[in-house]
Amino acid sequence: MGLFIVFEGVEGSGKSTMCSELHHILTETGRTVRTVREPGSTPTGEKIATWIKSGKDIVPMAELFLFSAARISLVENVIRPSLQEGTIVICDRYIYSTLSYQGYGRGLDRHIIENVNNLATKGLKPDLVVLLDLPVELGIARKSNRDLDRIEQEDKTFHDRIRTGYLDLASRDPERWLVIDSSLPITRLSEIVWSRVSDMLQ
Amino acid sequence: MGLFIVFEGVEGSGKSTMCSELHHILTETGRTVRTVREPGSTPTGEKIATWIKSGKDIVPMAELFLFSAARISLVENVIRPSLQEGTIVICDRYIYSTLSYQGYGRGLDRHIIENVNNLATKGLKPDLVVLLDLPVELGIARKSNRDLDRIEQEDKTFHDRIRTGYLDLASRDPERWLVIDSSLPITRLSEIVWSRVSDMLQ
Repeated sequence: MGLFIVFEGVEGSGKSTMCSELHHILTETGRTVRTVREPGSTPTGEKIATWIKSGKDIVPMAELFLFSAARISLVENVIRPSLQEGTIVICDRYIYSTLSYQGYGRGLDRHIIENVNNLATKGLKPDLVVLLDLPVELGIARKSNRDLDRIEQEDKTFHDRIRTGYLDLASRDPERWLVIDSSLPITRLSEIVWSRVSDMLQ
Repeated sequence: MGLFIVFEGVEGSGKSTMCSELHHILTETGRTVRTVREPGSTPTGEKIATWIKSGKDIVPMAELFLFSAARISLVENVIRPSLQEGTIVICDRYIYSTLSYQGYGRGLDRHIIENVNNLATKGLKPDLVVLLDLPVELGIARKSNRDLDRIEQEDKTFHDRIRTGYLDLASRDPERWLVIDSSLPITRLSEIVWSRVSDMLQ
């Protein structure tokens, strides 16, 4: 089995940058790596990603099911087969985004989300979750040059609840989670992540 | 509360015809009626319906979640509010299609489907399910002039399992289900359905 590494964090916390940094380092050390993102990285996932950003009639429970349908496509068609081949899989967002955004953010019942997450992934959990923690103001400021989608447009208290949710999830499973202050320079963030990942590869 | 009536049956069994026949009769007797279909009848549902017909990477569990996301949009945005206004809602397919197609047809676990169906509908069940029962050969022959979509193209044994599934579901809850031989003339089918519905309206 390969290694399954997930990056989580609020909007603008630098997840995609850190995914590609780690991908680069792992490739340079001769490992086979596959980097994917949620929702997306499959034909069905990309369709869903587009709808979720713009659909005006999407109630929270439908949003949960759409993210989960995208997740099933990604897990079954890409992540699980890649891990079985011994590939290292890096994923930008996973079940913890659903717990934070639809649970802490939208107020959906935590047990319902955990039930749906388990159905969607058949219990597949990552070996490591890197939380790029950042005060919400900084994350939003980093994205200010770009158009904000339907979820990014939610007010600051929504994004504050998500950050709190992430920290809460991390504190409940500290061995799986690595929490880093994402306002650190990228080179320093890369060092911290690589230090942890290289230990896991020993 | 209004009345919630669902039509179920294999491909080509005449569901949409019977939905519009009943809609017509009810409107003529002065009732407020809303006819919808699954998946569809909402912006999100229509997008999902289009994608389900053609998406090549849709594994059975993702199919279940996509149908359920469409169902949530329809139940929350249309069916439940309409029933609360006293409207009679006629729906072309509902949770029983999922049990038949994804359960009996695709072999997904029945308890998983019931779990997902309950999450999607918050337990909302129709007052009446009309099963338009038809040997699979006749249903496919009726559709032969049209292009068949991804699900319609499945082999005959798949559609046989679905018919068996429907009959099984009906036999477990005979007070809610009305099973009719859909090879009868449309006028006769309308009479049978109207006889049952008018009793419920007394």
